[in-house]
Amino acid sequence: MQTLKHIVESKHFEHLVLLLICANAALLGAETYPAILQRYGDTLHMLDRVFIAFFSIEILMRLAVYRERFFRKGWNIFDFCIVALTLLPFVGNLSALRTVRVLRALRLVSSVGSFRKVTESIIGAVRDFAAVLAVLLVVCYVYAVLASQLFGASHADQFGDVGVSLFTLFQIITLDNWSDIVRTVMTESPIAIPFFISFIVLTVFLLLSVIVGIASNAVRNADPEEKSITQKQAEEIIALLQKLNR
Amino acid sequence: MQTLKHIVESKHFEHLVLLLICANAALLGAETYPAILQRYGDTLHMLDRVFIAFFSIEILMRLAVYRERFFRKGWNIFDFCIVALTLLPFVGNLSALRTVRVLRALRLVSSVGSFRKVTESIIGAVRDFAAVLAVLLVVCYVYAVLASQLFGASHADQFGDVGVSLFTLFQIITLDNWSDIVRTVMTESPIAIPFFISFIVLTVFLLLSVIVGIASNAVRNADPEEKSITQKQAEEIIALLQKLNR
Amino acid sequence: MQTLKHIVESKHFEHLVLLLICANAALLGAETYPAILQRYGDTLHMLDRVFIAFFSIEILMRLAVYRERFFRKGWNIFDFCIVALTLLPFVGNLSALRTVRVLRALRLVSSVGSFRKVTESIIGAVRDFAAVLAVLLVVCYVYAVLASQLFGASHADQFGDVGVSLFTLFQIITLDNWSDIVRTVMTESPIAIPFFISFIVLTVFLLLSVIVGIASNAVRNADPEEKSITQKQAEEIIALLQKLNR
Amino acid sequence: MQTLKHIVESKHFEHLVLLLICANAALLGAETYPAILQRYGDTLHMLDRVFIAFFSIEILMRLAVYRERFFRKGWNIFDFCIVALTLLPFVGNLSALRTVRVLRALRLVSSVGSFRKVTESIIGAVRDFAAVLAVLLVVCYVYAVLASQLFGASHADQFGDVGVSLFTLFQIITLDNWSDIVRTVMTESPIAIPFFISFIVLTVFLLLSVIVGIASNAVRNADPEEKSITQKQAEEIIALLQKLNR
Repeated sequence: MQTLKHIVESKHFEHLVLLLICANAALLGAETYPAILQRYGDTLHMLDRVFIAFFSIEILMRLAVYRERFFRKGWNIFDFCIVALTLLPFVGNLSALRTVRVLRALRLVSSVGSFRKVTESIIGAVRDFAAVLAVLLVVCYVYAVLASQLFGASHADQFGDVGVSLFTLFQIITLDNWSDIVRTVMTESPIAIPFFISFIVLTVFLLLSVIVGIASNAVRNADPEEKSITQKQAEEIIALLQKLNR
Repeated sequence: MQTLKHIVESKHFEHLVLLLICANAALLGAETYPAILQRYGDTLHMLDRVFIAFFSIEILMRLAVYRERFFRKGWNIFDFCIVALTLLPFVGNLSALRTVRVLRALRLVSSVGSFRKVTESIIGAVRDFAAVLAVLLVVCYVYAVLASQLFGASHADQFGDVGVSLFTLFQIITLDNWSDIVRTVMTESPIAIPFFISFIVLTVFLLLSVIVGIASNAVRNADPEEKSITQKQAEEIIALLQKLNR
Repeated sequence: MQTLKHIVESKHFEHLVLLLICANAALLGAETYPAILQRYGDTLHMLDRVFIAFFSIEILMRLAVYRERFFRKGWNIFDFCIVALTLLPFVGNLSALRTVRVLRALRLVSSVGSFRKVTESIIGAVRDFAAVLAVLLVVCYVYAVLASQLFGASHADQFGDVGVSLFTLFQIITLDNWSDIVRTVMTESPIAIPFFISFIVLTVFLLLSVIVGIASNAVRNADPEEKSITQKQAEEIIALLQKLNR
Repeated sequence: MQTLKHIVESKHFEHLVLLLICANAALLGAETYPAILQRYGDTLHMLDRVFIAFFSIEILMRLAVYRERFFRKGWNIFDFCIVALTLLPFVGNLSALRTVRVLRALRLVSSVGSFRKVTESIIGAVRDFAAVLAVLLVVCYVYAVLASQLFGASHADQFGDVGVSLFTLFQIITLDNWSDIVRTVMTESPIAIPFFISFIVLTVFLLLSVIVGIASNAVRNADPEEKSITQKQAEEIIALLQKLNR
């Protein structure tokens, strides 16, 4: 057991796993070229089984070493789920699930320390700004229901029901070809002009406030060592000095 | 009265209102699907009346409790207006006003504390940068009048009068399909190239300065506890120390 | 002379000028509607002459009061040039110059204090980041010459010569319909893919560094009173305290 | 040798080089106009040889002065490579390499101090955020393989293999005409809607975190003189004061 722990925690093992994840990802990319698939299909499929076997053994090794502690770390659960998921097509005869094998490439994110940090900081940013994103969603929902009622009858493709409207409004938020949509709608309903312009201005402002909020948080949440002295501390210093001067 | 106040201010009542707002919003979304509307139309319409009744009673309860103080808070006025507005289609026979019922979903924004804060901070940001936005409007107006005079005769759809030009220029600011417009215009009037490029560069710079201004304000207007020590305080400290050293 | 100075510097006069600039701007906007122009054309033309007369007199009054000092302030020169320019169509018979009248609306920018500040801060920002913008220009120029040589022969409309290429590259920087252009070019010259992707990544990074540079400058250049205590001052404080402790 | 060093390091020599780089760039731009090329082609070609000769001599002079120290500076190597590269078409008969002459315009970037600084700070920014960009690449790669498997069969032009998919996904990240692509794909595979919306939201968030990271770094990495006092220093001050008060 001790030797197994030694192996699992060694730098060489880590690099081997990383290398195999990369090789697996490259293989998955190569498989998308019909010419390659036709010629080397069998080899690729066999290699694929080798990779699956390796990753399963790797997870089992780590499970054997850490046991219940294994599941305390989010990233371990992430690895476990990906490997479990990519074993599914073998268990049942679910050839449709073969595409999930691609997720194994995501293990790159969990295998490199700096990539893990990036992911965590992004999840943190999303949590901080959940309120702004929720307001954005409410605004989009109200506009989507309104759009369905106002323009749904004449433009079913874009505003047929609230689901379709939400997709179209998402397109408008990204400012992609929004003028085409608005120009066709506004010939029949002139209300479309204030409707969509107010929507664009509102959502762009909301998105901006997300960006700005994240930025100002990033500036403030510097390393404590780099963090600048606060007003409170300054007042403490002044109080101490005045006591001295008395 | 005291019990009514108790009810209105209780957490359970608040959660009930929030739940009903969400249910109402979901209902309004469901109504946009023609298939659902056809099959369950009567049920939905009845439910809608129940919601309207509930929200009216809720506002009346809060009015009864707080009386004239109710209208001192902006968010209460917001709630009152929305409920009053959505009662209108019942008073007169204004079936066209039925769409305003959707606004009730906006009460979500006024019912959750963190959503109210987001809205207030955005309104604050708009107020701070009213000057930049006003300059942007002046620049757009001047370009719109110029565009109508220069390209209005040959491209009435895009630049027929100052209103149409403003819409087209708004489209150009969002950088959506601007090249199509400029490429058609510039075959006849080569002046279109400097005209639109200067417009894009100018407005993008103005918008950038809004973003940057908001961002630097956000950094500075941190919580007083987090705010960093000022030069003034630093000078006070140094003065006190020099007095001690004398 | 003293009374004239009194008039020119009074708040009422300032507000009157502002009002007339707005009225003039509204008039210029109204003139762009063919229906209005046809019906009230004569009245509008007469009003226009009244405005020109008023603005000329206003500038003459300010010139009479301040004399050579008038031209020391940039904004006065700005006002003078605009009024002089809009008088030109009357001097010669240059009906083509009638469009310059629109520039009078720009006096709105020079007439409101906060608008002047916005403009000045933007000019300042441009000056600070002239170096980045110049590098951006050099990069665009090199890519434009290369594009003309590589794709000019087969796609003369987009890359015929360095001027046309610069316009197309500007369109690509704004990310507007760039994929259409690249997809047509790349069927013949596969080199187009790395060419344009490197161009987009490079220019977007350069633009980002402009934004970021402006933002971090805005944060640092706060009011001296708000500025936080510097390392230098902190070291001074520590030195003083150590002297005390000895 | 001493005089040569004097010449090479003189301001006049520097300005001459700068002037000739600009003239060379202008010449290269002029050559892209077919009319100019036809009429003055011989003159331009001769001038071009003069420029090549001059730049070769200039590099030789600097090599003669600094010898092995010449290659210690990155920008010198940059200059050397560009000149060497543009000499190639003369050595062999590689007329296809004539386009590389354009790169000489890039020497503008290495010849002006402030341009060099801009370039260096951008390279620094890329290095700092290599991790985020790598995560972005991994995400794009996974999505590209998935897209090839899911939509490759029916939309070979956009998602035929992983290379083509990567290009299309790059287009979608830039939000250019993404809705056209998604709308055609989603009629056959409804899974396209969550697929592409999650892709857009994810990549935009990753890009935002790059921008924000660069911005907050820029704010923190101010000049040491401008840097604000840190928490650590503040605690040192407080400790010293408490010692005094005892």
